Amino acid sequence: MIYKKHIFICTNQRPEGARVSCGEEHGSALTAEFKKLMKEKGLTVGMRAQRTGCCELCEYGPIVVVYPEGVFYGKVQLSDVNEIISEHLQNDRPVDRLLIPKLS
Amino acid sequence: MIYKKHIFICTNQRPEGARVSCGEEHGSALTAEFKKLMKEKGLTVGMRAQRTGCCELCEYGPIVVVYPEGVFYGKVQLSDVNEIISEHLQNDRPVDRLLIPKLS
Repeated sequence: MIYKKHIFICTNQRPEGARVSCGEEHGSALTAEFKKLMKEKGLTVGMRAQRTGCCELCEYGPIVVVYPEGVFYGKVQLSDVNEIISEHLQNDRPVDRLLIPKLS
Repeated sequence: MIYKKHIFICTNQRPEGARVSCGEEHGSALTAEFKKLMKEKGLTVGMRAQRTGCCELCEYGPIVVVYPEGVFYGKVQLSDVNEIISEHLQNDRPVDRLLIPKLS
């Protein structure tokens, strides 16, 4: 296992008028925020955040998934990224308030 | 953990002339092949294959990652997909010949 924490951020963009989607713009901004803060905190070895496609949990989007533990976060905003990093990535304490209810 | 097997297939395309990349066309074809064969084999509940961005293992591309176990496959061709599904996804036997050497 190359990554101790591997973070996947949905950037899927559905067409206008389709059901809700995580969104390319929002997903890309989240990915950039993860990368920026992880770099600032020195979390560049053994951890990686990257964009991904649809996780089929669109109604809870924007979605962030952390493996290997398989924790699924929903409705993630830019302001949540620092907490996910400091609590979950650095201290192995998933952020309860962002967990997708039906998966908890 | 929503997925018993969550398969991420790199579709990252670098510009012409840049270092090797997994490639959007090849990655998308791999993703389609996984989806098609998994559907045919009835593996649509608890498993999901989807595209993802760069895993930073470009020299071993095209890359396929299977979580939660964190198995990284390299140089994956369309003809390898059936074996990954039947051996790894269905029988929990990772396909040794496709494992990325430095990560085994």
